[in-house]
Amino acid sequence: MQGQQQQAYDRGITIFSPDGRLYQVEYAREAVKRGTASIGVRTAEGVVLAVDKRIRSPLMERTSVEKIHKADDHIGIASAGHVADARKLIDFARRDAQVNQLRYGEPIGVETLTKDVTDHIQQYTQVGGARPFGVALIVGGIEDGEPRLFETDPSGTPYEWKALAVGADRGEIQEYLETNYDETADLEGGIELALSALATANEDGLRPEGVGMATVDAESEQFVQLTDDEVGEYLESFDLLAADEDDTADEDDAADEDSEE
Amino acid sequence: MQGQQQQAYDRGITIFSPDGRLYQVEYAREAVKRGTASIGVRTAEGVVLAVDKRIRSPLMERTSVEKIHKADDHIGIASAGHVADARKLIDFARRDAQVNQLRYGEPIGVETLTKDVTDHIQQYTQVGGARPFGVALIVGGIEDGEPRLFETDPSGTPYEWKALAVGADRGEIQEYLETNYDETADLEGGIELALSALATANEDGLRPEGVGMATVDAESEQFVQLTDDEVGEYLESFDLLAADEDDTADEDDAADEDSEE
Amino acid sequence: MQGQQQQAYDRGITIFSPDGRLYQVEYAREAVKRGTASIGVRTAEGVVLAVDKRIRSPLMERTSVEKIHKADDHIGIASAGHVADARKLIDFARRDAQVNQLRYGEPIGVETLTKDVTDHIQQYTQVGGARPFGVALIVGGIEDGEPRLFETDPSGTPYEWKALAVGADRGEIQEYLETNYDETADLEGGIELALSALATANEDGLRPEGVGMATVDAESEQFVQLTDDEVGEYLESFDLLAADEDDTADEDDAADEDSEE
Amino acid sequence: MQGQQQQAYDRGITIFSPDGRLYQVEYAREAVKRGTASIGVRTAEGVVLAVDKRIRSPLMERTSVEKIHKADDHIGIASAGHVADARKLIDFARRDAQVNQLRYGEPIGVETLTKDVTDHIQQYTQVGGARPFGVALIVGGIEDGEPRLFETDPSGTPYEWKALAVGADRGEIQEYLETNYDETADLEGGIELALSALATANEDGLRPEGVGMATVDAESEQFVQLTDDEVGEYLESFDLLAADEDDTADEDDAADEDSEE
Amino acid sequence: MQGQQQQAYDRGITIFSPDGRLYQVEYAREAVKRGTASIGVRTAEGVVLAVDKRIRSPLMERTSVEKIHKADDHIGIASAGHVADARKLIDFARRDAQVNQLRYGEPIGVETLTKDVTDHIQQYTQVGGARPFGVALIVGGIEDGEPRLFETDPSGTPYEWKALAVGADRGEIQEYLETNYDETADLEGGIELALSALATANEDGLRPEGVGMATVDAESEQFVQLTDDEVGEYLESFDLLAADEDDTADEDDAADEDSEE
Amino acid sequence: MQGQQQQAYDRGITIFSPDGRLYQVEYAREAVKRGTASIGVRTAEGVVLAVDKRIRSPLMERTSVEKIHKADDHIGIASAGHVADARKLIDFARRDAQVNQLRYGEPIGVETLTKDVTDHIQQYTQVGGARPFGVALIVGGIEDGEPRLFETDPSGTPYEWKALAVGADRGEIQEYLETNYDETADLEGGIELALSALATANEDGLRPEGVGMATVDAESEQFVQLTDDEVGEYLESFDLLAADEDDTADEDDAADEDSEE
Amino acid sequence: MQGQQQQAYDRGITIFSPDGRLYQVEYAREAVKRGTASIGVRTAEGVVLAVDKRIRSPLMERTSVEKIHKADDHIGIASAGHVADARKLIDFARRDAQVNQLRYGEPIGVETLTKDVTDHIQQYTQVGGARPFGVALIVGGIEDGEPRLFETDPSGTPYEWKALAVGADRGEIQEYLETNYDETADLEGGIELALSALATANEDGLRPEGVGMATVDAESEQFVQLTDDEVGEYLESFDLLAADEDDTADEDDAADEDSEE
Repeated sequence: MQGQQQQAYDRGITIFSPDGRLYQVEYAREAVKRGTASIGVRTAEGVVLAVDKRIRSPLMERTSVEKIHKADDHIGIASAGHVADARKLIDFARRDAQVNQLRYGEPIGVETLTKDVTDHIQQYTQVGGARPFGVALIVGGIEDGEPRLFETDPSGTPYEWKALAVGADRGEIQEYLETNYDETADLEGGIELALSALATANEDGLRPEGVGMATVDAESEQFVQLTDDEVGEYLESFDLLAADEDDTADEDDAADEDSEE
Repeated sequence: MQGQQQQAYDRGITIFSPDGRLYQVEYAREAVKRGTASIGVRTAEGVVLAVDKRIRSPLMERTSVEKIHKADDHIGIASAGHVADARKLIDFARRDAQVNQLRYGEPIGVETLTKDVTDHIQQYTQVGGARPFGVALIVGGIEDGEPRLFETDPSGTPYEWKALAVGADRGEIQEYLETNYDETADLEGGIELALSALATANEDGLRPEGVGMATVDAESEQFVQLTDDEVGEYLESFDLLAADEDDTADEDDAADEDSEE
Repeated sequence: MQGQQQQAYDRGITIFSPDGRLYQVEYAREAVKRGTASIGVRTAEGVVLAVDKRIRSPLMERTSVEKIHKADDHIGIASAGHVADARKLIDFARRDAQVNQLRYGEPIGVETLTKDVTDHIQQYTQVGGARPFGVALIVGGIEDGEPRLFETDPSGTPYEWKALAVGADRGEIQEYLETNYDETADLEGGIELALSALATANEDGLRPEGVGMATVDAESEQFVQLTDDEVGEYLESFDLLAADEDDTADEDDAADEDSEE
Repeated sequence: MQGQQQQAYDRGITIFSPDGRLYQVEYAREAVKRGTASIGVRTAEGVVLAVDKRIRSPLMERTSVEKIHKADDHIGIASAGHVADARKLIDFARRDAQVNQLRYGEPIGVETLTKDVTDHIQQYTQVGGARPFGVALIVGGIEDGEPRLFETDPSGTPYEWKALAVGADRGEIQEYLETNYDETADLEGGIELALSALATANEDGLRPEGVGMATVDAESEQFVQLTDDEVGEYLESFDLLAADEDDTADEDDAADEDSEE
Repeated sequence: MQGQQQQAYDRGITIFSPDGRLYQVEYAREAVKRGTASIGVRTAEGVVLAVDKRIRSPLMERTSVEKIHKADDHIGIASAGHVADARKLIDFARRDAQVNQLRYGEPIGVETLTKDVTDHIQQYTQVGGARPFGVALIVGGIEDGEPRLFETDPSGTPYEWKALAVGADRGEIQEYLETNYDETADLEGGIELALSALATANEDGLRPEGVGMATVDAESEQFVQLTDDEVGEYLESFDLLAADEDDTADEDDAADEDSEE
Repeated sequence: MQGQQQQAYDRGITIFSPDGRLYQVEYAREAVKRGTASIGVRTAEGVVLAVDKRIRSPLMERTSVEKIHKADDHIGIASAGHVADARKLIDFARRDAQVNQLRYGEPIGVETLTKDVTDHIQQYTQVGGARPFGVALIVGGIEDGEPRLFETDPSGTPYEWKALAVGADRGEIQEYLETNYDETADLEGGIELALSALATANEDGLRPEGVGMATVDAESEQFVQLTDDEVGEYLESFDLLAADEDDTADEDDAADEDSEE
Repeated sequence: MQGQQQQAYDRGITIFSPDGRLYQVEYAREAVKRGTASIGVRTAEGVVLAVDKRIRSPLMERTSVEKIHKADDHIGIASAGHVADARKLIDFARRDAQVNQLRYGEPIGVETLTKDVTDHIQQYTQVGGARPFGVALIVGGIEDGEPRLFETDPSGTPYEWKALAVGADRGEIQEYLETNYDETADLEGGIELALSALATANEDGLRPEGVGMATVDAESEQFVQLTDDEVGEYLESFDLLAADEDDTADEDDAADEDSEE
C-alpha cells in the first residue's frame, strides 16, 4: 500500500489504516532511527548504558548532547530520537520517581517507572490534538537487587530486554548483541559488549568524547556516569580506540541530524 | 464499495458510511488480527487462557510480552492486538474491580467487569477526538462459583463464549475449537484444547516460552499463571512440543509485528 | 442525487443537504437495518417483545446476544442495530427510570421514558463532535394500567405503535403485522403474532435458542423474559418450530453482522 | 450560481456565500418543506391550528405523530419539518413559559415567547459546532385578550400572520388562505378555512385521523386539542370528508418522509 | 483575483487574502444589500429613521417586519440585512443601554452605544468559530441635546453621518440624499427627505404600510414610531403616495428576500 | 514561490512556509497598505501625528473617521489599516495605560505601552483560532520628558522611529521624510514636515477636513488634537492647501476602501 | 522527497513525515536563518554576545532593533529570527528567573534557565493549535563563577557551546569561529573574535551602530551592554571599522527582512 491511498491515513494520528496500522506511530519510529544509537546491556552485576554522541561542531560542548539521564538514584535512561521529546519524557519519569518515593517511602521499581512512562506515551497515540513522542528510551536500573532493562517505543509498549539497541543502525548492533551476549558476564563484560557493539556502527573506532556511558551496579544501586577518561581506558583496553582524534562529524550530515540528536 | 468513495468515510471515526458501517471500528478489528492469537476456553472446573507469545529477538524477555493479565484475584484477561491499547483497558478494568470491591465489599462479577470495559470502549467509537481501541480482550473468571468467559471487541460489544480465539488465525483456531469443544471437560481438558488449538496456527509445534497460559479454577477462584515448566509438561504430555528449540521469530516478520504484539 | 455531490453532505453530521436531508442520520438507519429483526406487539393484556438472535459460532452463548433489556420493572426494550450503541441508550433509560422513581416516588411512564431517550438521541444529530446512534429501540410497558409500545429511531423521533418491526426485513415483517394484527387479541395472541411475523424472515422456521422474547402484562405490570423452553413450547404450539436443530448461522454472513448484532 | 462553486459555501453553516446567503439555513428550509403541512389561522375569537398527519403504517398510533403541542395554557404550537428538532424547540418554549410565569407571576406573551424561541434558533445559524434547526413553528395564542399568530423559521426570524401555512405545499395552501381569509370570521369560520386550505393539498379529501387540530379561543384563553370525532363532524359539515376510509400513506412515500414527519 | 484562488480565502473568516481583504466580511456586506433599504437623516431638530417594509403575503402582519427598533428612550435603530442577526445586535444594544443607566445613572450616549456595538461585531470577524453579522444598523438619537446619527457595518467600523442609506439600492438613495440634504432643515424637512429618498427605489410610489418611520426629536429626547396614518399623511403631503393600493410584493421575489428581510 | 504551492501555507496563520515565512502576517501587512497613510514625526519639542482622512460621501462626518486616538494624557496613537481592528488595539492600550496608572501611581511609559500592545498582537500570530490584526499603529508621546515615537506592525514587532509613515504610499512618504527630516526642528517644523510628507501622496494638495492631526509636546506632556481651522492655517502657511474645495473621494474608490479606512 | 507528497506533512505541526521529520520545526529554522546573525563567545573571563543590527531606514532608532536582552543580572540573551517570537521567549525567561530568585533565594543557573525555555518551546512542537517559535536564542551568563553559553533552537533542544552563531550566514561565521577560537582568550579576546566573525558576513566592514554587543564577565557577574562608542573603539582597534558611514540597508532587502528582524 503506497502513494496516495497511504496519505489518507497518515495525516491524523488518531486514525487506523484499513490494514489496522497507525502510521503516525510508525513515522515516529522513523524519528527514532534518525537519532544516533543507544545501547543497554544487562549483566548479572548491573546494567550498562552506552550511547553514540556526535556533535555538529568542535565548539559544541559534548556534555550538552544529553542522551543518558539519571531518572532516580538507582535508574538511568538512555534515549534515541527527538531530543526535546526525550527531555519531556525524562521529566515525566523523574517526577514519577519522586512522587513514588514520597507516597510509598521507597524507590520506584524499574518496571513500574517504565510502564508509567509508556502509559503516558500511549495517550499521545490515541487522543487527538498532539503527535506521538518521536523517541525511544532504554530504562535500566536495579529492582529488588536485580538488574532490569526496559525499552519504551513510540507506540507506548514496554519491553524487557537482556540487551538492546535503539536508534540508527539498530539492526546491525542488535545482531552483534545477540551473537555476543553472555548472561554470566560481569559489569565489565557488559561494558565491553556495549562498546564493541557501538563500534560496529563506527568503522573508524570510537573516541572517549564520542561515547556516553553509565552503569547501575546491583550492589551500590547507584547510577554512575563514566568520565571521558574512564571511557577512554575501557576503549583502550578493548582495543576500540579510534586512531585519529580529529573527526568532528561532517558539517552537512550533522546539520541534518541536529533536530533528532 | 471500494476505492475513492470508501476513503470518504473511513477518515473520521464518528461517521457512518452510506451502508451503515463504521470503518474506523472495522480497521481497529484489523489491528486485532495483526496481533498473535489468544484463546479462551471455559470448562466445568474453570476457565483457561492461552496466548501465542512471539518475540523479536532472543534477547527480549519473553515475560515482557504481556498478553495475559490479572484483573482481579478471580479474573484474568488475555489480549490480542495493539499492546499499548490493551494496557490502557487492563488498567481501566483493574481500577473498576477495585472500586467495586471498595463500594460493595465484594468481588466484581465477570460480566459486570466486561460490560464496564465495553461501555468504555464504545465512547471511543462515537465521540470525536480519539480513535477506537485496537485490541480485543478475552475476560475469564469465576462468578457465583461458575466459570464465565467473555470477549470485548473494538466496537464495544460484549459477547459470552464457551471457547473463542481472537487475533491472527482466528478463523482456523475457532474452527478447531468448535469441532473439539467438550462442555464436560475438566480444567486439564480445557488446557489441552487450548494448546491444541493454538498449535493449529504453529505448524512446527509449540515451545513453552512461546506460550502464555493462565487458569482460574472454580474452586479456588484464583487467577494462576502457569510457569514455562508447567506449560512444557502439558505440551509434552499432549505431544505438542516443537522438535527444534531454536526458532526465534524471523527478524523481518517480527519487526512488522512489534507495534501490534 | 448520487455520487460526488452527495459526498459533500454526508461527511459531517451537522449539515443539511440541499434538499434538506441529514445523511448521517439516514446512514445510521442503514446500521439499524444491518441488525437482525426485533418486533413489538401491543395487546389488550400487555406488550410482547420478540427478537431474532443469530450467533457467529455455536460456542457463543446465545444469552450474550442482548437484544431484549429490562429498563424498569414495568418496561422492556428491544433493540436492532449497533449493539454497543444500544447498550449506551439502555443505560441512559435505566438511569432515567431510577431518577424518576427517586424524584417522584412513582414508576416512570413509558411515553416519558421514550421521549427522554429520543431527546438524548437528537442531541447527537445536531451538535458536532459525535456521530448519531446507530440503533432503533422498541420500548414496551404498562402505563396507568394500559399497555404502551413506542419506537425510537436514529433521528430522535418517538413513535407510538400497535405493532412494529425494526431491523433486517422490516418491510416484510411489518406487512405481516399489518395484515394479521388484531386489537382484541390476548397476550398469547400477541406472542403468536410476534413469532409468526418473525418466522416470515426465517424460511426454515425458528428455534427456541434463536428467539428472544419478553412480555409485560397489564395485570402484574412486570417485565418477564421467557425461557428457551417456554419459547420452544410456543413455537411448537404455533407450528413454527424448525425441523433441523443444526443451523448455526453461516460463518461468513455472521462475521459480517458481528458489529451490528 | 450552481455546481462546484456552491459547494464551497454550503458545507459550513457559519459562512456567507459571495452573494451574502447562508446555504445551511436555506437547506434547513428545505427540511421544513419535506414535512407535511401545518396551518395557522387567526380569527376575531381565537386562533386555529391544523396539521396534516400522515402515518407510515396503519399500526402506528396517529396520536404519536406530534405536530401540535401545548406550550402553555394559552399558547399552542404547530410544527413542520424535522420532528426531533421540533421537540427540542417545544421543550425550550415550555421551559421559557414556566420561567416567565415564575419570575413575573403572569403568563408569557405570545410575542415574547416567539422571540425567545427565534433568538435561540439564531444562535445555531451563527456559532459553529452545530447545524440550524430544520423546523418551522406556528405559535398561536392569546395575549392581552387578543389572538396572536406567529411563525418561526430556520433563520431565527419571527413573523406575525393573520393566517399562514408551513411545510409541504406551502405555496398552494397559502394562496388558498390569501384568497379566502376573512378577518371578521368567528372561530368556526377559522376552523373551516384551515380545513379547507388543508384539503387543497389532499385531493381525495380528509379523514379525521389524518388531521390534527387545536384552538385557543380568546374568551377562555385555553389551548384545546380537538378529538377525532370533533374533527370528523367539522369535516362532514364542511363537506371535506374523504369518501374512502382506507388510505394509509403509500409505504414507499411514507418511508421517505419518516425522518421529517 | 477571481475563481479558484479566491475560494481559498473566503471559506474561513479569520483569514486574510493575499491582498489584505477579509472575504467573509465582504460577503456579509452582500447580505446587507439583500435587505430592503433603511435610511437615516439628521436634522437640527432631531433624527429621522425610515425603512422599506416589504412583506411576503398580504396575510403577514406588517408590524412584524421589524426594521426599526427602540434601543433606549432616546435612541432608535434601523437595520438592513439578516433580520435574526439584527435582533441579536439590538438585544445587545438594549442591554448595553440598561447597564449604562444602572451603572452611571444617566442615559447612554449615542456614540458610546454605537461603539460598544461595533466592538462586539468586530469580535465575530477576528475570532474563529462564528460568522460575521450579516446586518448594518443605523443608530440615531440625542446626545447632550444634539442629534447624532451613526452606522455600524459588518466589519465592526462605526461611522457618523448627516444622512445615509443602507441595504438595497444604497447607491441610488445615497446619491439622492447627497444632492438634497440641507443641514438647516427641521424635523419635517428630514422626514420629507427620507421619504423622498426612499421613493427613488420604489418607482410606483410608497404606501403607508410599506414604510416604517420613527423620529427622535432633540427637545423631547424621545424615540417615537409613526403610525401608518401619520406616514400616510406625510406621503400625501409630499405627493409620494402610490396610486394603486394593491401591490403585495411578488411572491417569488419576496420568497427570495425572506431570510434577509 | 507562487501559485498552488503558496496556497498551502497561507491558509492557516499558525504555519510556517518552507522558507520560514508567515503568510497570514504578510497579508495583514497588505491590509495596512489598503488604509490611507498615517505619519508620525518626532521633534525636539514633541511628537506630531498626521493622518490622511478620506470619506465615502460628503454626508459622512469626517470626525467619525477615527485615525488618531488619545491613549493617555501624554500618548497619542495614529493607525492605518483595518479600522475595527485598530479600535480593538486602542481599547487594549487605554486599559493598559489605566492599569499602569492605578498600579504604579504614574503614567505609563511610551515604550512600555507599545511593547504591551505588540506582545498582545504576537499572540494572534502564533496561537490558532484567530487571525492577526490587520493594522499598524504609530504610538507617540512623552516619556521622562523626552518625545518618543514607536510603530507596531502586524507581526507584533515594536520599532522606534524619528519619523515614519504607515499605510498607503508608505514608500514614497517615507522617502520624503528621510530626505527632509531635521532632528533639530521644533514642533512647528515637525508639523510642516508631516503635512508636506502627506501632501506627496495627494497631488492636488490637502484640505483641512481631509487631514487629522495631533501633537504631544514635551513641556505640557498633553495630547492635543488640532481643529480643522488650526490645520487649515498650517496648510496655508506651508502652501499646501488644495485649490478646489470640492473633492469628495470618488464613490467607487471609496467604497473599496471603506472596510480598511 | 519533494513536491506534492511533502505538502501533506508540512501543513500541520503535530505530524511526523514518513521519514520521521517534523517539517514545521524545520521551517521555523528557516525563519531563524532569515534573521541577521547573532554570535556568542565563551571565554575564561566571561561570555560575549554580538549581533548584526540592520535597519530599514535611517530614521529608525537602532536601539529599537532588540536583539540582545538582559534576562537577569548575570544572564544575557541574543536572538535571531522572528522578533516578536523572541520577545515572548525573553519574557518567559525573565519571569522564570524572577520566580527562581523568589523561590530559592538565589540567581537561576544558566543551564536551568535555558532548559526551562527549551521545554517551553517543545510544547509548541507537539501539541496542536499553535506554531513553533521561529527564533533561536543564545543564552550566556555566569553560573557558579563559570561562564556558560547555550543555544535554544525551534525544536526545543538545548545545546552548550564554546562559541556559536545563529541566523543568516551561520555556516560561514561558525566556520570562522571554529578556526579562530582560543579557549585561553580573555574577555577582550572574545570580543575581538565575535566582531571578527561578524565581519565575515559584512564585506564592507562594521559600523558601531550596526552592531549590538554585551558581556557578562565572571568577576562582576553583571550583564553589561556596550555603547556605540565602546563598540566603535573596539572596531577601530581591531581594524574592522567600515570606511563609509552611509550604508543604510537597501530599502527592498530591508522590507523583506522586517518581519524577521
